[in-house]
Amino acid sequence: MATVSDLSERELITRIQQRLPPPPGWLTIGIGDDAAVVEPERNRLDVLSVDALVEGVHFDRAFTPPEAIGHRALAVNLSDLAAMGAAPRLCLLSLVLPPAWPLADFEAMIDGLLRLAGRHRMHVAGGNLARSPGPLVIDITVSGTLKRRQVSTRGGARPGDELYVSGSIGGAAAGLDMLREARTRGSHEAAREGAGDEACTKRYLYPEPRIRLGQLLARNRAASASVDLSDGLADGVHRLAEASGVGVIVDADALPIEPAARTWFAARSNDALGRSVSGGDDYELLFAVRPRTRRRLSAAARHGGVPLTRIGVCTEDRAVVLRCGSGESVADMPLPAGYGHFR
Amino acid sequence: MATVSDLSERELITRIQQRLPPPPGWLTIGIGDDAAVVEPERNRLDVLSVDALVEGVHFDRAFTPPEAIGHRALAVNLSDLAAMGAAPRLCLLSLVLPPAWPLADFEAMIDGLLRLAGRHRMHVAGGNLARSPGPLVIDITVSGTLKRRQVSTRGGARPGDELYVSGSIGGAAAGLDMLREARTRGSHEAAREGAGDEACTKRYLYPEPRIRLGQLLARNRAASASVDLSDGLADGVHRLAEASGVGVIVDADALPIEPAARTWFAARSNDALGRSVSGGDDYELLFAVRPRTRRRLSAAARHGGVPLTRIGVCTEDRAVVLRCGSGESVADMPLPAGYGHFR
Repeated sequence: MATVSDLSERELITRIQQRLPPPPGWLTIGIGDDAAVVEPERNRLDVLSVDALVEGVHFDRAFTPPEAIGHRALAVNLSDLAAMGAAPRLCLLSLVLPPAWPLADFEAMIDGLLRLAGRHRMHVAGGNLARSPGPLVIDITVSGTLKRRQVSTRGGARPGDELYVSGSIGGAAAGLDMLREARTRGSHEAAREGAGDEACTKRYLYPEPRIRLGQLLARNRAASASVDLSDGLADGVHRLAEASGVGVIVDADALPIEPAARTWFAARSNDALGRSVSGGDDYELLFAVRPRTRRRLSAAARHGGVPLTRIGVCTEDRAVVLRCGSGESVADMPLPAGYGHFR
Repeated sequence: MATVSDLSERELITRIQQRLPPPPGWLTIGIGDDAAVVEPERNRLDVLSVDALVEGVHFDRAFTPPEAIGHRALAVNLSDLAAMGAAPRLCLLSLVLPPAWPLADFEAMIDGLLRLAGRHRMHVAGGNLARSPGPLVIDITVSGTLKRRQVSTRGGARPGDELYVSGSIGGAAAGLDMLREARTRGSHEAAREGAGDEACTKRYLYPEPRIRLGQLLARNRAASASVDLSDGLADGVHRLAEASGVGVIVDADALPIEPAARTWFAARSNDALGRSVSGGDDYELLFAVRPRTRRRLSAAARHGGVPLTRIGVCTEDRAVVLRCGSGESVADMPLPAGYGHFR
């Protein structure tokens, strides 16, 4: 079986170039020179982000097909652009490859990445290949654009703002659980094919960055603050609250927990709520909305391609709490920390 | 001894932030949000590049001080901007950290990087931290700017154009040899302090990207094609020749081989010439000049901060040869391939 070390760096780059669509006019110099040269978009700002996926930390090759590795590596970056409301433009791929990696997997990884890139009109403008004695690392830099008046950060929420989340949460964490469990039981093929509940495994393997929603929120200046949920809802709430200098009450009953994830977690841990708010890899958007300008949400709610759920409110008091029950039986508890990739 | 795994991702980011100078006005949103937001420079193009250094492949922690790791990781990227003639603007740092890496080394690495960044007015606009079970990876994306009419590529050379190289070659390869040999002999401290010839070890550990020269060449449109010598002179000549569709005759006697490197290689391999043209990590600029517009070189030659040497000529015939001797005893041989990091 051919591996990536059977080809030279230039031959591997050619394998990527062969898969690329024709470059857009604004890409003055694309892949293959010392650097890419890009025509900026008139009257817009550049939005830049970088994120790396490391084998053994962010994914396991045993149950993550190469197409999904490529998809996820780009999706986590597109999700950062979505949180800023930026229109995707280009990416740079920096790949650190273990020499024994099958060439067919390398090509499938590129295919998975380019399929997602094409859907969001993102062009590969350049990159770098390096070999490594260690794990596979896929490091992607993305660039998008935004109008000046559309800039929003994590730090703009004020007491009284309502918190919304897109789509559902917990699905990716349950999906990862399912894939791991199938793998442990030795059912390798079952894992790859999507064992357990496919809604969850697909959420983990092929997350959908909320690009359209993010752009609609930015265009209508509907969000006072926003963040993407790479490390789970709880982590996102904490980051937004901290950057904005507010507290948050999250209404546990309102949380849009993916039903299949709720079932899966409930059967195993008796803590479907905790697992769902702490589990990472959702890549939904969490954002704050001023009640006075709530009507600006309507375009995003109608055309964002994903349901929006009001899950809480920002408070003057700096505590970040999860509120369970209602009326006389209400109970507040501290919202747990998110899933930390780092330690 | 504290290691990077003793701190959370956020605490490590704080250690970086504390070291940053105040952000420039064009950096609308810097480190700490989902993405950086940047005001483009009016009437200029963006130049983007990414390059990774992988421990065990591009550097050895045993004899590369952390300051030098940080310096080199940024220098190889600045060198790509220099080859394009771009003015440096910002970088994104993506770091993949082995948990046992001493915190003091992490901080020293950042210091080495920021020192070089400051000298070239490059600002850290964002990045990413990940942990890894494998080697340390420092992946840096750089962005610079360029006027539209200043764009040049590797592919613009024509037969008759003269080839120039900046500074000297072979020094970094000899320096790496010296550091390795000192390390093998067990003289750890000597290696770190700069054993052997300091001119060479310094060239390897702290390469100087030719930013000023690259900008002067671009401003005066003095070069018809240019490339930086990351993988050695021979590799650079091959790349420029291939991209331009020309052949090259390199005059062996004209090559500005670093004297200390010549001595070092001559004593060991009897092939100082071959080792010097194939050795990587020089980070000089190689560029072609049309004889008719040679006078445009004068500003670069006077103010580029580094000597320029004419080393050969581009030819119609596509062969890339090294010409030794002169007159009746002239001998042409194929120019060897460069140093390949990849296989």
